[in-house]
Amino acid sequence: MERTPVVVILGGGFAGLHAVKVLADEPVKIILVDKNNYHLFQPLLYQVATAGLGPEDISYPLRAILQQQSNTEFHMAEAVDINLEGKKLITSNGEIDYDYLLVAVGAVTNFFGNANVAKNAYGLKNLEDAFKLRNHILSMCELATQENDPAIRRELLTFIVTGGGATGVECIGGIAELVHHVLVKDYPELDFSESSLLLLEGGDRLLVSMPEDLSMAALTELRRKGVDVRFHAKVDDFDSRGVRLADGTSIPARTLVWGAGVRCAPIIEKCKVQTDRLGRAMVLPTLQLPEYPEVFVVGDAAHYKQDGRPLPMIAPVAVQQAETAAKNVLNIVQGNPLQNFLYRELGNLATIGRSFAVAHFNRWKFSGFFAWLLWLAVHLIRLVGFRNRFIVTINWAWDYFFYDRALRMIHRL
Amino acid sequence: MERTPVVVILGGGFAGLHAVKVLADEPVKIILVDKNNYHLFQPLLYQVATAGLGPEDISYPLRAILQQQSNTEFHMAEAVDINLEGKKLITSNGEIDYDYLLVAVGAVTNFFGNANVAKNAYGLKNLEDAFKLRNHILSMCELATQENDPAIRRELLTFIVTGGGATGVECIGGIAELVHHVLVKDYPELDFSESSLLLLEGGDRLLVSMPEDLSMAALTELRRKGVDVRFHAKVDDFDSRGVRLADGTSIPARTLVWGAGVRCAPIIEKCKVQTDRLGRAMVLPTLQLPEYPEVFVVGDAAHYKQDGRPLPMIAPVAVQQAETAAKNVLNIVQGNPLQNFLYRELGNLATIGRSFAVAHFNRWKFSGFFAWLLWLAVHLIRLVGFRNRFIVTINWAWDYFFYDRALRMIHRL
Repeated sequence: MERTPVVVILGGGFAGLHAVKVLADEPVKIILVDKNNYHLFQPLLYQVATAGLGPEDISYPLRAILQQQSNTEFHMAEAVDINLEGKKLITSNGEIDYDYLLVAVGAVTNFFGNANVAKNAYGLKNLEDAFKLRNHILSMCELATQENDPAIRRELLTFIVTGGGATGVECIGGIAELVHHVLVKDYPELDFSESSLLLLEGGDRLLVSMPEDLSMAALTELRRKGVDVRFHAKVDDFDSRGVRLADGTSIPARTLVWGAGVRCAPIIEKCKVQTDRLGRAMVLPTLQLPEYPEVFVVGDAAHYKQDGRPLPMIAPVAVQQAETAAKNVLNIVQGNPLQNFLYRELGNLATIGRSFAVAHFNRWKFSGFFAWLLWLAVHLIRLVGFRNRFIVTINWAWDYFFYDRALRMIHRL
Repeated sequence: MERTPVVVILGGGFAGLHAVKVLADEPVKIILVDKNNYHLFQPLLYQVATAGLGPEDISYPLRAILQQQSNTEFHMAEAVDINLEGKKLITSNGEIDYDYLLVAVGAVTNFFGNANVAKNAYGLKNLEDAFKLRNHILSMCELATQENDPAIRRELLTFIVTGGGATGVECIGGIAELVHHVLVKDYPELDFSESSLLLLEGGDRLLVSMPEDLSMAALTELRRKGVDVRFHAKVDDFDSRGVRLADGTSIPARTLVWGAGVRCAPIIEKCKVQTDRLGRAMVLPTLQLPEYPEVFVVGDAAHYKQDGRPLPMIAPVAVQQAETAAKNVLNIVQGNPLQNFLYRELGNLATIGRSFAVAHFNRWKFSGFFAWLLWLAVHLIRLVGFRNRFIVTINWAWDYFFYDRALRMIHRL
C-alpha cells in the first residue's frame, strides 16, 4: 500500500484554513502549523484597538475548527526555516517532513526599516498590536486627566494614523467614534476640544484601490467625523512624543498607528528563494516555487502578477490562491494536469465608523448606510464560528443603539 | 459656605464600589482610586482560567459605572502609601488630600513567604493570574502532543490545585470539566488517561465554612469528576516540574494553582497601623482606625472580630462593611452618632463544574442541580453591567448545551 502523502500547511489564517478545508475529505494527511493556536479575523483588529470588540471575539481556536476533520493534525510551533532540499519544515520545536508544503504565512507590518518608528508606533497586524493600542489610547486619557499643562494634554490626546488604505481609514474612523461618542462621556473632566485626530497619507487620495468618487466620499465622511486628513504627508520619525514629517513639520503626539504598509512574514526571505522587495516569493502561474514543485506559496507570501501588476495583499486573493494551490496538490497526487491561478475580483468594502461604508462591486458603487449594512453582513458571514458571530453581533448592536463601547478596560495581561 | 468634604475611596472592588454608590447623592465629593480602570468580578476568575469566559466578560470599566454619578471622580493610580498624619493618599502619580479615607484594597495571594512557590505557582486573585493560567493549561496540552516520553507527558498533563476552600474547589472543578469535556475532543492525539487532576487540602475536609454534609457532597462530586482529592497534604515546594509535600511525597507536575490562602494587599502594613498576621488593620466597631477617626478600613483589609472570631475575607462581609463605613462617614459629616458594624450572614455557595453546587442559607442546605441554578442566578445578578450579564449568560448557555468552551485561545497579550 502506498503511503498517504503528507501536506504541511504553514499558517492558520484565511488562506491556510481554506486550504485545510479544501483538502478535508481527500486522501492526504494534513499537518497545520501555526505559532498561535487560534485563527484570527484580521479585518476586525481595528475594532479591538478601539474597544468595540474583545480579543476573544475575533479569534477562534484552530483545534475547535479541526475537530470534525479526521485527516488533519495541528502542530503549534513557530516556523523558523524551510529546508527546501530536504523537504523539512524547521520549527521552534522540531522538524516536520513534508511531501507537499503550502506556505500561507501572511504579512507583518512594514516599517520600511525605520527602527524608531518600529519601536514607538503601533502596528495593526496581530492581536497583541490591537490590544496594546487599546490599552495605550485609554491610558493616554487617564494621564490627561492628571495633567495640568495644556500643551502636554494636547499631546496626550492627539491620535495619528498613517496610511490612507482600508486599515488606516477604518482605524481612524474607529478612534473618532470612540473619542466623540464614548470617551467624552467617560471623561467629563477632559476638554476634548484639546484632542486631535489625524490621518496622514503619503499620496493624494484615500483608498486607492477604489473608484475616485468613493475615495472622495470616504474623505468627506472622515472630515465630518472630525478627522484632519492630510495628503502628501510622509512620516519620517516618531519618538513617542511627536511625529516628524518629511517636509519638516512636527506634530506633538504620543500615539502613531502605522497603517502605511505590510510585507511578507520573514520566513520566505530566510529560505533564499527569489523574492520581491516586500519579501514575497516569486511563484509560477500554478503557485509553485519555480525549482520546488512540491512547494506552493499563496496569499501575502506570494508575488503573483496578473494583467501586468502584482496582486494586492488582501484576503480574497489569499483565499482564492489557497483554493487553487490545494487543488493543485491534489492534481499532482492524482496525476492530473495542474491549473493556473486566475484572480476574480469580487469587490471592495471599507467602513468609516458607525453607519457609513464605501462599496465597489463591478459596475456597482455606493456609499453610506446601505454600504455599511453590507459591510456588516459580509464580515459577520466570514467570521469563523457561529458563537463569535453571535457575540460580535451583540457587541455591535449594543454599540449602535447605546453609542457605548463596553470594552474600554486597560488590561495588563 | 463650607467646603464640600472630600472622601477618597481606595479600591474599586465590591466594597469600594458599594461605598461609592451609598454616597452617590450625598453632599460629599468622592475620589475613587484604583490601579485598574475596571471593576473585576473576582468570583468568576476561575472561569477565565478554565476558558469558560473571557477577561472582558468579568471586568467592567469603572468610568462607565460612574458616568451617572456627578459627585464622583475617578483617579487611576496605584496607592503607594498613606500619610495618616497629613491626610494624604500617596499614589504612583501624585498625592491626593482627603477629609475621609475609605480603604477597600482587597487581598492578594498569600504564599506564606515561600518564594519558590510564589515564583512558579499560579495565584487566582486578578485577571492576569487567570489569563496566564488559561494560557499555561492550554500550552501544556500543546507541548504534550509533541512529547514522546510518557513520563514527561504525564507531568505536562498533571494539574494540581492546593486549598480546599471555595477557590480551590471551583478551580479544580472547572479544570476537570475543561479536560474531560473539551480538551479530549480538541486533542484526539493525546491519551487523557495520562492526565491527573489533584486537589490538595492541608486539613481534613473541603469548604470548612459549610456544614459537614455539604463538604462531603462536594467531595463526592469532585471524585465523581475524576479529581484525586487528598487531605493532610501540605505543599512545601514547587519548582515548576514537581510539587513536594510536607510528608516528603513528590508529585511530578508543571501546574500548581495556589488557592491555599490570601492576605491583605501590602499598603496597610506599609502605613504602620496595628495589623494581624494577614496584614489586615485592626479596626474599631465603627470600622475606623483607632487613632485616625477619619480613616475607615473595610473588607479584606480589615480585621473585625464578631462572636469572638475574625470575619472571613469574603465579598458579603466587604460589601456590608462598605455600607456601614460609608454611612458612618456621612454620620460624621452630619454630626450624627456612628453605628457599629454587625455582619449578617446571608448564605454560602460553591459550585463544582457544570450542574452541581452546594448551598447553605440559615436552616436550608442543599446540593446538586438546584443549588447550581441558584449559584448561577446569584452570580448573574451580582455581575456589574447588563451587557456583561447578557454575554456571560450566552457563554454559559453555550457551554451547557454544547459541552464546549469556546475561549481556549492562547493569547500572548
